[in-house]
Amino acid sequence: EVLSQNSVTGVGVDQELISAVPSHNPTFVARNFTDSEIAYCQSQPSPSASFAARWVGKEAVFKALGVSSKGAAAPMKEIEILPDAAGVPTVILHGDAKVAAEGKGVSKVHISLSHSETTAIAFAQATSA
Amino acid sequence: EVLSQNSVTGVGVDQELISAVPSHNPTFVARNFTDSEIAYCQSQPSPSASFAARWVGKEAVFKALGVSSKGAAAPMKEIEILPDAAGVPTVILHGDAKVAAEGKGVSKVHISLSHSETTAIAFAQATSA
Amino acid sequence: EVLSQNSVTGVGVDQELISAVPSHNPTFVARNFTDSEIAYCQSQPSPSASFAARWVGKEAVFKALGVSSKGAAAPMKEIEILPDAAGVPTVILHGDAKVAAEGKGVSKVHISLSHSETTAIAFAQATSA
Repeated sequence: EVLSQNSVTGVGVDQELISAVPSHNPTFVARNFTDSEIAYCQSQPSPSASFAARWVGKEAVFKALGVSSKGAAAPMKEIEILPDAAGVPTVILHGDAKVAAEGKGVSKVHISLSHSETTAIAFAQATSA
Repeated sequence: EVLSQNSVTGVGVDQELISAVPSHNPTFVARNFTDSEIAYCQSQPSPSASFAARWVGKEAVFKALGVSSKGAAAPMKEIEILPDAAGVPTVILHGDAKVAAEGKGVSKVHISLSHSETTAIAFAQATSA
Repeated sequence: EVLSQNSVTGVGVDQELISAVPSHNPTFVARNFTDSEIAYCQSQPSPSASFAARWVGKEAVFKALGVSSKGAAAPMKEIEILPDAAGVPTVILHGDAKVAAEGKGVSKVHISLSHSETTAIAFAQATSA
């Protein structure tokens, strides 16, 4: 018998004014985003909106995992959010974030991102297999 | 043995300024909302807020299904959102949207809508049986 | 055989301007928040933001349960939201809200809260065992 059903283990929501995310600061960007994320955001119509959406997305993933993001010390780069072949934002975990997720039995984190002219918002959901 | 548990297949969030949704434009309304949706929204205390909430709701459903809404060309009318007997917003899929959902094994899309004075927001979640 | 998988039964989103939640009104606070919630919010850096986040959280839980909050008459105090040992916001139901949830087979409500400088937002998800 195969049970493919998953189980929700946690949810996370986060929002931020796009203007409050310092995406024009190269140090901030290099510390918090992977090379692939940077290339993707810079290819978008509004890079600052794309960086802000990913930024709140990473925070939402931390909340869904039920671990603290430890503020500025959080390894935000370990939560990578990239579009899949169909354009759907997909979460890839690395390092400590991956270990924390595995320790909680989380096998998949769903994510959705949105931005208006002023505000970026993200919702994340962690599920176990 | 009956397995009634469902499985989350995708999530979607969307937001928009209520003032950015042209709900006073009859062509926009007729193209994107069903007759039942129009009757419902026009019966509400703030029709423009109700139209805007449904508008972001339809976009959130597209995101949860993992398909592109194709912008203005998207068949938004195929995503119908109406209150059930208890007043809970319920998603009814038609046409290509229904086919796309079935093709992905999605049997139910949960939705929640909210609006403040200025902003409408929606969250959708697609599940398989 | 043990089936630990849960099943999503409803979702809820709610938002409000922090300034629109009268958290400086002692009557409002005493009627809608438990002693533990009040103590927690008053210990936070911005009590008004914490009260507002819990306020929209309670409304989001009502939506996820698929029951009307009945506006001002709703027993908001019966939806208690407190951080667990890891700091994750956790929903504890009391009274009529607990009975309503049990009647719908809801065994757990996940919640996430967020506030920017101006706006509080919450997402809730009801699951059955």
